[in-house]
Amino acid sequence: MKTGFLLTVAYDGTNYSGWQRQKNAYTVQQAMEETLSKVFNQPIVVTGASRTDAGVHALGQRVCFSAENISVPLNKIPLVLNNCLPEDIAVFNAEIVPLDFNPRYRAREKTYQYRIDNDTFPNPFLRKTTWYYPFILDVDAMKTAAAYFMGEHDFAAFRSTGTDYNSTVRELFECSVTQEKKTITITVRGNAFLYNMARIIAGTLVYVGRLKIKPADITCIIASKDRTRAGITAPPHGLTLVEIKY
Amino acid sequence: MKTGFLLTVAYDGTNYSGWQRQKNAYTVQQAMEETLSKVFNQPIVVTGASRTDAGVHALGQRVCFSAENISVPLNKIPLVLNNCLPEDIAVFNAEIVPLDFNPRYRAREKTYQYRIDNDTFPNPFLRKTTWYYPFILDVDAMKTAAAYFMGEHDFAAFRSTGTDYNSTVRELFECSVTQEKKTITITVRGNAFLYNMARIIAGTLVYVGRLKIKPADITCIIASKDRTRAGITAPPHGLTLVEIKY
Repeated sequence: MKTGFLLTVAYDGTNYSGWQRQKNAYTVQQAMEETLSKVFNQPIVVTGASRTDAGVHALGQRVCFSAENISVPLNKIPLVLNNCLPEDIAVFNAEIVPLDFNPRYRAREKTYQYRIDNDTFPNPFLRKTTWYYPFILDVDAMKTAAAYFMGEHDFAAFRSTGTDYNSTVRELFECSVTQEKKTITITVRGNAFLYNMARIIAGTLVYVGRLKIKPADITCIIASKDRTRAGITAPPHGLTLVEIKY
Repeated sequence: MKTGFLLTVAYDGTNYSGWQRQKNAYTVQQAMEETLSKVFNQPIVVTGASRTDAGVHALGQRVCFSAENISVPLNKIPLVLNNCLPEDIAVFNAEIVPLDFNPRYRAREKTYQYRIDNDTFPNPFLRKTTWYYPFILDVDAMKTAAAYFMGEHDFAAFRSTGTDYNSTVRELFECSVTQEKKTITITVRGNAFLYNMARIIAGTLVYVGRLKIKPADITCIIASKDRTRAGITAPPHGLTLVEIKY
């Protein structure tokens, strides 16, 4: 009998070419499929809720698969998988879902965090999970600007080309900027995200911090639907997929 | 004219065989000597305040060297060095010291932190800087036990063999245990440390947390001067040299 499973997975994306399987590069999906197929002794294909880019990290990625005749008790599955997975991938939870459960389309809320190391010199311990950006940033202006992103908007100005969408309207429930010592964290929480949307919002907020864009201009940039008016796409290694809710 | 310099250096020790130069292994000292010799265009030998073991990290290592005719302004030295050092080593400060300044013997206070990831499953982001230890720990007992280490004691029971000392008496100004979510941090601050002393104190406090040693027994173990009565030497990658004061 086939059973559907939904895993909660954390990974340090540094050594992977992103989530999605590729022909000539090693990805998190491939690492997980190889481990699961070996552990459960059957060919297993997994579906991720978010196709994180190369270098992007995850604390709460959700990963679906179905398998036949699994004898391992549900609560032991994380332990069994963690014993075999590479040390930069860890399963934190396993639950049973219907066989047709799609972790991507069923998600109703995703949270990403983008972290910036704003210290004068680069902290070696943060180099793989933050964007080292030693220039002066007006964090209060960034906070003010962040609020303009909240709500339902057409985010066409905040996506990279490469993916077609029926609609570029998305809703952000939260967009906030916090600072602890020299680390600045941008949190975006929404119903869904366009390709590179979280990183372009982060790059735009950094431009606000550099006084290249005024906080109140965010509204005009959103309305323009013009990608060239937003800031740069912040580098991938500062981004972490924190949580997905169903 | 020769000038003496004292650097404050942070490093992720994961990819190094410790601080001290070795014949057949790459160390932080070698990486720094190679970079400094190249940048200042003269052979440079450095002296570290603490000979951290393989895998041990540093936020505030102190490193001394002398060099002739340095034209770079003092406040630009960190920037110039960081541009050439490997990305897992960073210089945070440079100051001028007398030519005979010995960073090891002149230190009057060193602070180390030992971190434990006590979560059920290993957090991939903490795997290189914490000891993943998923067993139940009585943190209150660890806190009580830590206090017994404070003050001046003969720490002969808390050192590994391999180094001769005139005296094994050391003074700890602080020994404390804190917890934030599932991460437990042991802080030890003292006038000097014996070989592996910080890691053996950490391993002993973990034994207290596992109820293998009672907090009040710490006094007897210290008095015994018997290494076999203390706990294990906790693995190196959980240890960070945080600060050195002169």
